Amino acid sequence: MTEPIDQLCIDTIRALSMDAVQAANSGHPGLPLGMAPAAFVLYADVMKHDPADPDWPDRDRFVLSAGHGSMLLYSALHLAGYDLSLDDLKHFRQWDSRTPGHPERERLADGRWRTPGVEVTTGPLGQGFGNGVGMAIAEQHLRHTFGAEVQDHHIYAIVSDGDLMEGVASEAASLAGQLGLGKLVYLYDDNDISLDGPTSLSFDSEDVSKRFDAYGWQVLEVGDANDVHALRAAVAEGNSETERPTLIHVKSIIGYPSPHKQGTSAAHGAPLGEEEVRLTKEAMGWDPDKTFFVPDGVYERFQRRGRKGARERSAWQQRLDALKQDAAKAELWDCAWAGKPLPGVGEALAPGAIDWGKPALATRVAGKQAMAAFDSFVPTMVGGAADLSGSTNTMFPGGDEERLTRDHVGRNVYFGVREHGMGAAVNGMAAHGGIVRPYGSTFLQFADYMRGAIRLSALQELKVAWVFTHDSVALGEDGPTHQPVEHLAALRAIPHLTVLRPGDAMETAEAWRVILEDLDGPAALILSRQNLPVMTDAPVRDGVARGAYVVRATEEVPQAVIVGTGSEVHTALEAADLLAADGLRVQVVSMPSWELFAKQDQAYRQSVLPAGVPKVSVEAGIAMGWSQWVDASVSIERFGASAPGDVVLERLGITPAATAAKVKELVG
Amino acid sequence: MTEPIDQLCIDTIRALSMDAVQAANSGHPGLPLGMAPAAFVLYADVMKHDPADPDWPDRDRFVLSAGHGSMLLYSALHLAGYDLSLDDLKHFRQWDSRTPGHPERERLADGRWRTPGVEVTTGPLGQGFGNGVGMAIAEQHLRHTFGAEVQDHHIYAIVSDGDLMEGVASEAASLAGQLGLGKLVYLYDDNDISLDGPTSLSFDSEDVSKRFDAYGWQVLEVGDANDVHALRAAVAEGNSETERPTLIHVKSIIGYPSPHKQGTSAAHGAPLGEEEVRLTKEAMGWDPDKTFFVPDGVYERFQRRGRKGARERSAWQQRLDALKQDAAKAELWDCAWAGKPLPGVGEALAPGAIDWGKPALATRVAGKQAMAAFDSFVPTMVGGAADLSGSTNTMFPGGDEERLTRDHVGRNVYFGVREHGMGAAVNGMAAHGGIVRPYGSTFLQFADYMRGAIRLSALQELKVAWVFTHDSVALGEDGPTHQPVEHLAALRAIPHLTVLRPGDAMETAEAWRVILEDLDGPAALILSRQNLPVMTDAPVRDGVARGAYVVRATEEVPQAVIVGTGSEVHTALEAADLLAADGLRVQVVSMPSWELFAKQDQAYRQSVLPAGVPKVSVEAGIAMGWSQWVDASVSIERFGASAPGDVVLERLGITPAATAAKVKELVG
Repeated sequence: MTEPIDQLCIDTIRALSMDAVQAANSGHPGLPLGMAPAAFVLYADVMKHDPADPDWPDRDRFVLSAGHGSMLLYSALHLAGYDLSLDDLKHFRQWDSRTPGHPERERLADGRWRTPGVEVTTGPLGQGFGNGVGMAIAEQHLRHTFGAEVQDHHIYAIVSDGDLMEGVASEAASLAGQLGLGKLVYLYDDNDISLDGPTSLSFDSEDVSKRFDAYGWQVLEVGDANDVHALRAAVAEGNSETERPTLIHVKSIIGYPSPHKQGTSAAHGAPLGEEEVRLTKEAMGWDPDKTFFVPDGVYERFQRRGRKGARERSAWQQRLDALKQDAAKAELWDCAWAGKPLPGVGEALAPGAIDWGKPALATRVAGKQAMAAFDSFVPTMVGGAADLSGSTNTMFPGGDEERLTRDHVGRNVYFGVREHGMGAAVNGMAAHGGIVRPYGSTFLQFADYMRGAIRLSALQELKVAWVFTHDSVALGEDGPTHQPVEHLAALRAIPHLTVLRPGDAMETAEAWRVILEDLDGPAALILSRQNLPVMTDAPVRDGVARGAYVVRATEEVPQAVIVGTGSEVHTALEAADLLAADGLRVQVVSMPSWELFAKQDQAYRQSVLPAGVPKVSVEAGIAMGWSQWVDASVSIERFGASAPGDVVLERLGITPAATAAKVKELVG
Repeated sequence: MTEPIDQLCIDTIRALSMDAVQAANSGHPGLPLGMAPAAFVLYADVMKHDPADPDWPDRDRFVLSAGHGSMLLYSALHLAGYDLSLDDLKHFRQWDSRTPGHPERERLADGRWRTPGVEVTTGPLGQGFGNGVGMAIAEQHLRHTFGAEVQDHHIYAIVSDGDLMEGVASEAASLAGQLGLGKLVYLYDDNDISLDGPTSLSFDSEDVSKRFDAYGWQVLEVGDANDVHALRAAVAEGNSETERPTLIHVKSIIGYPSPHKQGTSAAHGAPLGEEEVRLTKEAMGWDPDKTFFVPDGVYERFQRRGRKGARERSAWQQRLDALKQDAAKAELWDCAWAGKPLPGVGEALAPGAIDWGKPALATRVAGKQAMAAFDSFVPTMVGGAADLSGSTNTMFPGGDEERLTRDHVGRNVYFGVREHGMGAAVNGMAAHGGIVRPYGSTFLQFADYMRGAIRLSALQELKVAWVFTHDSVALGEDGPTHQPVEHLAALRAIPHLTVLRPGDAMETAEAWRVILEDLDGPAALILSRQNLPVMTDAPVRDGVARGAYVVRATEEVPQAVIVGTGSEVHTALEAADLLAADGLRVQVVSMPSWELFAKQDQAYRQSVLPAGVPKVSVEAGIAMGWSQWVDASVSIERFGASAPGDVVLERLGITPAATAAKVKELVG
């Protein structure tokens, strides 16, 4: 039997959620109604949190993976005492409100969170599931680095049928099992309904509990979402399991207790309607005339766990202060939570600081050498590749010895062939905080597999790094299934994502510096498979940070400009040689980043790409978008082909000769 | 004990595969060595196929989902008697060879297949797994439509650890279990190795057999890949199971019997090296000096099943001829396998043929009405949505009654919240043949989740339709996680994909006609959530097919042109009204498809977008790429926001006023 005050709290979540959806005339009431008891148990009884400090590093994290049920979260945050008013709830889904349609992690211009207590942006299904996995990796790493006295908390989530049908969640679940992430406790809202109707339409042959058992999870069952005692017991059992993640399989009734819509897809994604809201309130024993109403005693009861959390945070602060008596640890802690490398990383990556060892090397190899150079400045940087670390060369020194396993807290993660799950987990590490520039890596081609996660990193401006190698048809024999041609354009299309395609080892080191020191949002670092000459005399330090720069100037005003990126900077240089032999003065520009160049002032841009001078780009990919910078493009407007890389480049016309010919055509 | 001649066949696969990889000095020898017995059993003993006719509609299908092991397939195809010579094998991974790095389904200009017997392009992991699921849906549908006497076959696949880690395969596996696709028999090459090393790095906590059991699959175990008797028995057991798909869990040794590299990741993705190839041949009892050698008796034995297949095909042809005595069935069969609708679909979709019922409706709603209009002309068209059919409005009349379930062969598929698995399955239906224009549908936002499959539809020029609705920020309250802004650009970036964004109901019907009648490759149909006025007087019939056309001409030479797509055609028209009030003559162009317009001759293009006249585009997304068509763009260069759709459009400047202002700025 649920305590009357507890029931009142639960029903208040329901009432507020119904009212807000009704006021917006838009939204998803079904999940908040059905899972209100779970949110109540988590926020009012279980979670270590302090609503006064939603940034407390050692708080428990909660992820509403089923982000469409956002009113469940907003109602709980309001009642738990976060800085989110009843008035905010009344503006659900309105322009610039603090309660957008799906939860959005967003730092406003004034430094506040759009919605305090929202850990991560959710809505695209499955992502939140994977974000939690990354948070658990982060917690484990930071606990290992700083000690359990300052980092020791759980990650809770509510996940839906839809989440569990998504491949990204399957990948993340398998990874969590592999890594034995015991701090994960997920509640699965099994309500038998998805948007199209009963889940029997598409999701009833699968035994979800058995599947998660197969992934290596502890699976617990709660037969009735309204049984708060069973929910508490299951969560406690999940908390006490330290070797395996826990899935609590909760049978719920969507839209409960709406008399006419509970248990149907009608309750999922549309307002119940005024009359049905009234009837539902009556079914709860509420006055149907009252809206946005919080009964006496509800705040008091709901904030019980938060008040305890405030005391826990004070005690934690004392432990942190003690830890920070050690100046080195204090600096490390502060940098980690500021998301910044330790001082000195710029020098470690400066031109001349790294001995490349040979006159030409692939930028993916240079990337590995750069990582070795900045390794000691980012001791909480964690990442890895989707079963391609041997090819992408993304790994910190120590290699397998520094591998993250269920038995060893390393920072080289073998994500397995799970690109999308990797992406969601890396986002989760960044959202957790404390992990400086978490990264994920695969071939550029497979950026397509994780695009949902890349977009969310950009939408949230998370400080992650995506490292994509094998960046053009020059990868050769693996053929068109592995050769990107449209991928640079497709990444540049994403707002807030900074794409960097360095042209040699020196630019690669500098690109990493820019990512670690300069950027406040996500970066995509695009690296070559093939060897490229090291441009020891290019002014990369200033040039990469500015997005584009002159790698070869002319003594007099140039007659043409060739712009290259990545490996094609060298195509451009050779084309300029050919044209010089014909007496043409050509300025060569390396343009590792459109986004950074677009931020430069007019005078600098004019010095690099002077108006009135014919300009040609050369890049081993489609020309889309280049016309904003140049007059003509040497590009690849088709899929690639299987053959040795130099043959493919030659056949597809990415050559100095073709580039020179295009310049001549333009100069006339 | 394996028969000596069988062992010789198996070892010939191994030797040819090693030799080809060595000759190319590039490739993946490990899988062909380890799984040679499975390929032998399938091609030489099990599969109903006739190498003389790789297009035989009732052949068994084989999918090498682990496409990097392509030499396994090429060796088997050669030995089985397909039109693939030893010389072709010697040109593995060379320009324009018939044996590219990964299997490629490609129809050459002369009408031949690049590689006869390759059913589908694989390499990006997990896709082949999902393709097979689509093939099984196709087989089931066609068996139901035409009878088991002309369509009754299995779909076999070899899938790897990497495949099974991918989310796309997880989604497809769950779907296959849901639909009870008994014709699927997949062999899982469990070799304990992935690219980065032993699968213990990332994939040993998961119990794969239990997981597939949870999906509703029959799971069988073969403890040793070299035990051909056990392989045959397991495949037979898989064949006899009709209610569930079957996964045969085969323990293999990668690179077997290479003395120094078997069982290691060194055998996975690089040539063994000349010396190790010699040692491996010696370990097999072969003369190490012989390369590309096929011992006596091998062709004879290997082609035993194919010879039987030729007889089966003759018998099948007689049954088909009998069936085609019925003229209606003959026409249906021929159209189905030609991938064409029945005659008359153009009339059914002609302007005026559909009563839209109201003056304004969302193009997603118009799409549903168009589907009802062309329904009877494409009786073998199968498709559905990723749990959004109620929102995307993609469904044939009959609705749930025509739903595909394990107990009913309908053609409305509930794919569940499995976008990527849906994409791979739809590709598989198209690759199977007989299904006219299979389609998959979701919100445009979630094109990101299935981009890997969309790209493969384009690479193979599969005749599929992707239907993406909720196509802009105008969808409103769901906010930036659901509002596409960069997605049109990202789709237009994919070679061979025709993107169509109709501006009203009339254009929507015509767009469907173009897709069904005109296009030889994949299409993406982009539809609105919000209502749009029906442009009853626009010349859509010719205009949509040409990609762009004048919806409002001026009497004299225009002073400016405004180009809109989709909902923004109406923004453009209203802007032209505003400008007309200011005395400016503005031509308005609807441009549903860049790709179709680019194919028009210069004169037509000039008539639509006249040179020398200032041109402005308006589209509720990023401007990337528009500069090839126009001088300035009204666009959205940021993420969207949660608010009612009209508010978002207003705030982000997608309005007639902003468009008119941009035109004035340009005209000066």
